[in-house]
Amino acid sequence: MGYTGSASGSVSQQGLPVRIVSTGTSLPPQLVTSAEFDQRWQLRAGTTAAASGVELRHQASSGESAQSLAVIATRAALDSAGLKAQDLDCVVSASSTPQQAIPCFAAQIHAALGLQGSGIPAFDLNATCLSFLVALEQLSYAIAAGRYRRVLLVSAELPSRALNPACRYTAPLFGDGAAAVILERSDADGSALLAAAQETYSEGQDACHLKAGGSNYFLAGQAQVASAVGTFFEMDGKALYKLSARHLPALFERVLRQAGVRRDQIQCFIPHQASGKALSILPRLLDISPARIVNILASHGNQVAASMPFALDAAIRSGKAKRGDLIALIGTGAGVSLGVAVMRL
Amino acid sequence: MGYTGSASGSVSQQGLPVRIVSTGTSLPPQLVTSAEFDQRWQLRAGTTAAASGVELRHQASSGESAQSLAVIATRAALDSAGLKAQDLDCVVSASSTPQQAIPCFAAQIHAALGLQGSGIPAFDLNATCLSFLVALEQLSYAIAAGRYRRVLLVSAELPSRALNPACRYTAPLFGDGAAAVILERSDADGSALLAAAQETYSEGQDACHLKAGGSNYFLAGQAQVASAVGTFFEMDGKALYKLSARHLPALFERVLRQAGVRRDQIQCFIPHQASGKALSILPRLLDISPARIVNILASHGNQVAASMPFALDAAIRSGKAKRGDLIALIGTGAGVSLGVAVMRL
Repeated sequence: MGYTGSASGSVSQQGLPVRIVSTGTSLPPQLVTSAEFDQRWQLRAGTTAAASGVELRHQASSGESAQSLAVIATRAALDSAGLKAQDLDCVVSASSTPQQAIPCFAAQIHAALGLQGSGIPAFDLNATCLSFLVALEQLSYAIAAGRYRRVLLVSAELPSRALNPACRYTAPLFGDGAAAVILERSDADGSALLAAAQETYSEGQDACHLKAGGSNYFLAGQAQVASAVGTFFEMDGKALYKLSARHLPALFERVLRQAGVRRDQIQCFIPHQASGKALSILPRLLDISPARIVNILASHGNQVAASMPFALDAAIRSGKAKRGDLIALIGTGAGVSLGVAVMRL
Repeated sequence: MGYTGSASGSVSQQGLPVRIVSTGTSLPPQLVTSAEFDQRWQLRAGTTAAASGVELRHQASSGESAQSLAVIATRAALDSAGLKAQDLDCVVSASSTPQQAIPCFAAQIHAALGLQGSGIPAFDLNATCLSFLVALEQLSYAIAAGRYRRVLLVSAELPSRALNPACRYTAPLFGDGAAAVILERSDADGSALLAAAQETYSEGQDACHLKAGGSNYFLAGQAQVASAVGTFFEMDGKALYKLSARHLPALFERVLRQAGVRRDQIQCFIPHQASGKALSILPRLLDISPARIVNILASHGNQVAASMPFALDAAIRSGKAKRGDLIALIGTGAGVSLGVAVMRL
């Protein structure tokens, strides 16, 4: 179901009136090169980079936190728009994991932004790697309904804390980082979320998992149990790829149709930076121009939910996506969930 | 900002056109009485029940999971409405913690509902104890915009897994359980979300916390660290109470005003079942009739995010809240977040 022609009549043919005001990112300073993995595993130079598509990734030290990265990214986005944290109407964490179980991550970011006594609402939205895309869509409805004027969507991820250092597939693939997006009501300037959709195929629920961190294993007195069942993130890339390749083309077509645009009108495609293989297959899978696809994987790794807003920030900063352009956000992630959104920037 | 008179003009004076179609709950069979706590701590009979307001609470065994409770509650809600899982357009987990970190809890519930190949979207929304209320509001915008016809909101909680058995304050206060609500577009029958608001005061972020379960402590190789910093839920009831008492009355007045209703028109008040003291203070704090407040604390304990939809289910089943009635949902929780919603049922 699209927005246009909805039963409520509340959404015009122009989509939901929202605008990405600004973006910001942050990275922990420590860099890990793929050459270090080659050395660790006594592989020929270049093997790890070729297999993962990642040359460099940033890694948080033990003194850094997802919260501190979230705050730096948010400050960058606020500064870029000439706004203060107090100008926000809602703080949404769109991350795959919180910093701690309770309270929600957004409340902790809220506090670190100096909003302690503000009353500005804060909550988390989570669809693993697709969290940002889902939050963008859901909060656009609230903005369109007049509920919020300006919303912070922030994704902060420290996958390094959950990786098995001995796994040659996952250990080099992921990178830490955070990205923030300020979304506000657009004032008849043409900026809009034209269409979006998400699909979940939970037949792939085990293809990408982290069994720790929830009521099954992480809690009181169960540290040893958690350790025994595995606190490492695990991923079956082939299973993920198969499900995505099966369903993404039809989902993409559907969202294009709902948005009323042709693929060749889209100036910039911003995919989740899943892996080198996943990115390389996109042009053929979706029949889109490789030159229009944003690829920051080599220098960042897969930053989980922060990956898509980070790539969006890169697209805007590099001029690849300009105000007024049609852009498409294309995501895949654990669940397995797929998502596509078409916006006029 | 309310819905009425919104800048978009997309929401009528009658609020957002949504209807609670049905509700369902589930409880693990094992009961723990407050007498057992009295005995454990060698207290005079009745001491624990008097202090906590809880006589009985259900507790999951090691073989039970939040997912299995979520599915039983959802099946009950579906059956009650004569619906099948395939009739849902979206599956939302509104729980304070997932079952495991990845994938999101909603994807796991989606799988257990037999929706593996359906493509029906699934994601989590989390504002700790306020999760249900926030999900109800956010998804109402999407329903009002024509995005979904029918949404599952399900809260499943196993606080027993995070409680310190030696803490005389928290150990007897909480109970395990799950509750599901099916929300759909209302067809001009008067059912509506008239107004809702959430406020977060993160000055109270430490008043209610569980430091495990996130990127700070839970992850790879850090089981011992998690154990050392404390994997137990901790709560400073006085600090929570102070913040809630300071801000809840004004928030309640604001939502009443936005909904255009007087407190004496509201047939049923459904508060989060925070504690005996929190519930007992509500009539005076908000100037509402004690007879109209739903209280299931004594037989269930505080079920975290499941508490409010569980109380809603009890209100509907007992006839305390009937179709066409005005009801108010009133929540407080970690963050600290407060929320109020007024609906015509």
